Amino acid sequence: MSGFVRKVSGGITAPQGFRAAGIACGIKRTADPDLALIVSEAPAAAVGMFTRNRAVAAPVVWTRKILPTPALRAVIVNSGNANACTGVTGLQDAEAMAAHTADHLSVRKREVAVASTGVIGAPLPMEALLPAIPRLIKGLSRSGGTRAARAILTTDTRTKIRAVETTLRGKRVRIGGIAKGSGMIHPNMATMLAFVTTDAAVEPVFLKDALKEAVEQSFNRITVDGETSTNDMVLILANGLSGVRLGARELRSSGFQTGLNQVCQEMAFDIVRDGEGATKFVTVRVVGGKNENHCLIVARRIAQSSLVKTALFGEDANWGRIMAAAGVAGIPLQPERLDIYFDKVQLVKQGAARGVREEHQASRVLKKKHITITVDLHQGSAAAEIYTTDLSLDYVRINADYRS
Amino acid sequence: MSGFVRKVSGGITAPQGFRAAGIACGIKRTADPDLALIVSEAPAAAVGMFTRNRAVAAPVVWTRKILPTPALRAVIVNSGNANACTGVTGLQDAEAMAAHTADHLSVRKREVAVASTGVIGAPLPMEALLPAIPRLIKGLSRSGGTRAARAILTTDTRTKIRAVETTLRGKRVRIGGIAKGSGMIHPNMATMLAFVTTDAAVEPVFLKDALKEAVEQSFNRITVDGETSTNDMVLILANGLSGVRLGARELRSSGFQTGLNQVCQEMAFDIVRDGEGATKFVTVRVVGGKNENHCLIVARRIAQSSLVKTALFGEDANWGRIMAAAGVAGIPLQPERLDIYFDKVQLVKQGAARGVREEHQASRVLKKKHITITVDLHQGSAAAEIYTTDLSLDYVRINADYRS
Repeated sequence: MSGFVRKVSGGITAPQGFRAAGIACGIKRTADPDLALIVSEAPAAAVGMFTRNRAVAAPVVWTRKILPTPALRAVIVNSGNANACTGVTGLQDAEAMAAHTADHLSVRKREVAVASTGVIGAPLPMEALLPAIPRLIKGLSRSGGTRAARAILTTDTRTKIRAVETTLRGKRVRIGGIAKGSGMIHPNMATMLAFVTTDAAVEPVFLKDALKEAVEQSFNRITVDGETSTNDMVLILANGLSGVRLGARELRSSGFQTGLNQVCQEMAFDIVRDGEGATKFVTVRVVGGKNENHCLIVARRIAQSSLVKTALFGEDANWGRIMAAAGVAGIPLQPERLDIYFDKVQLVKQGAARGVREEHQASRVLKKKHITITVDLHQGSAAAEIYTTDLSLDYVRINADYRS
Repeated sequence: MSGFVRKVSGGITAPQGFRAAGIACGIKRTADPDLALIVSEAPAAAVGMFTRNRAVAAPVVWTRKILPTPALRAVIVNSGNANACTGVTGLQDAEAMAAHTADHLSVRKREVAVASTGVIGAPLPMEALLPAIPRLIKGLSRSGGTRAARAILTTDTRTKIRAVETTLRGKRVRIGGIAKGSGMIHPNMATMLAFVTTDAAVEPVFLKDALKEAVEQSFNRITVDGETSTNDMVLILANGLSGVRLGARELRSSGFQTGLNQVCQEMAFDIVRDGEGATKFVTVRVVGGKNENHCLIVARRIAQSSLVKTALFGEDANWGRIMAAAGVAGIPLQPERLDIYFDKVQLVKQGAARGVREEHQASRVLKKKHITITVDLHQGSAAAEIYTTDLSLDYVRINADYRS
């Protein structure tokens, strides 16, 4: 029953029975949209994965409390204000967002998840937010996924919208997602917001396993600046309206997991591409490791090195910085055995430079927008990839000026 | 016998019996000095601390092999080329630097330490370096400390020269130092070059303890960009020419350890002040911790956060980023108990913003060149400090262009 996975349009409103909306309610000083809503016609199984930051924002506290659940009805999301480090008032505000939305939708408070993203430490302007909820609900539509995708953005320069469909037992099953993120992007949980919908029917316990696998392969493999936010959250809602019920075994063998992985990975790549000030999409591939975890550790250390990232911005094939970053990753390695490639150009063989010709070839590779750095540890046969960006002048500009 | 510690001039040539020189031999494309030599008239006890990077440069391999020793005579240092990731040739080149210097000084090869700093991965231009050694030796003088200090610089914008003296048993004892470093500066060993001389007589085993303590309080408390180089090295030479011999007990109780700590801390601060592109000197002070290590972990995480550092560059009192960085440090903490201060302005009380007036006051603090961020964990009575810089546009410019 392994189904072929096709891309479709529509994002979170591509699956049956989901409506969405996005409006500007005045949280942002600009007139940009800052309030989004996703509603499922039928109660949806829902699970989430959350930030590992110990400073957890109020909406994360609320949503973690109500999930997992077999019956979520809505997700309300605001941007422009993270409702983080806002104390007891922040917790009350997050709960009030859920309560007001629930009232107007005639569902229960515990059936509404809440997410926020934006500036930390400022109280949420409830006087702007709450009165806008009826208008937000009026705006709900089957084509509202795009507007919702826009309303969850902060420093992002573009929306992240993905959807796929597959056929299971002769029926069409869809998976859609929207995401937000361009800085504070780092492995170990989401480190951004992502909302995934599907019209498959999946028990929360199996849904959690499926989400974990997808997140591990996608959001946990990207890094922009090594930061982990207080607000990170990935939610998935499964409302079953396709009529296809999936148990643990079918999840593995069907196209569902493949499709979910694909939606999450495409959103993760969208986030890297939109990394604050990024001029390059960089795949750091570590091969020849003893195990996958070793490869991930080395790849992450390289992907997080400010010196490697500024060299990439400067289009300088500075492999010495890659070597130095690998050397401090914390796993045993023999630098004199390392090979380093920029795309297919081998710059370093057994820990030493190959020559001037290869340097020139590598310089040409570095002018490209997409670059793969491959490091061969020559210790075994494991491999892993991390996806990142360069560190540009605009990264500093954006983050020096974000609040002012 | 606890002696009063006074600052003196002269750096590494302030203590008796040390001569130094610095010349340009053509390793750097510019005409800047790039070769330095420190010589002791009498055999000096010498110990070192070295990079923890597993990719270890050739000069580190050599110098680690010959230390500790009761009888070092010279240290030769080049800048402009790190002789790192240069394979077998690199090791031969480092040894040849020691051998040639030893020949011309009529000492043994194993009595000459070697250090290098600069670009990684390029072969050392021995054809320029070796013939320059006689001229370097001719330049040796009792006032050559400043020239040596200049010749070990790379992206540094100024020399780091410090010296103190104290009186022990009625005799004058001096400690001098020169250092190099402005990027790749990060705790866990030196992460830069520093050479310390003293005319006290100290057995290598005690000298090692004294150096460890000094480094722990200085170079291991600073961070510029979270990078650890392949070449980091701190050496100390004690030639005994003051006529004062210090055992383990006297080291503790006398002004010697105080003086050594001071020289190392001042050089460490010089390095932070000269951090690549830095516009601020930032002390991150964490108090109220369960133990010092917890405080250090939190302080380092804050000091290494790109988001905190860009906010400081933007003079934005963005305490939310400080909270978020503390939250991912990896130690248990209660964000709702945290207090945060910019200098004496308390911005955050029990995890929440205090108000607009404090924001304004903090904004004024941020216009200063020296800022202390204090975070009170309210878990105990331990405290620790880490010293760092902001992350500026110039950091990116310098590191994007370093080789080109």
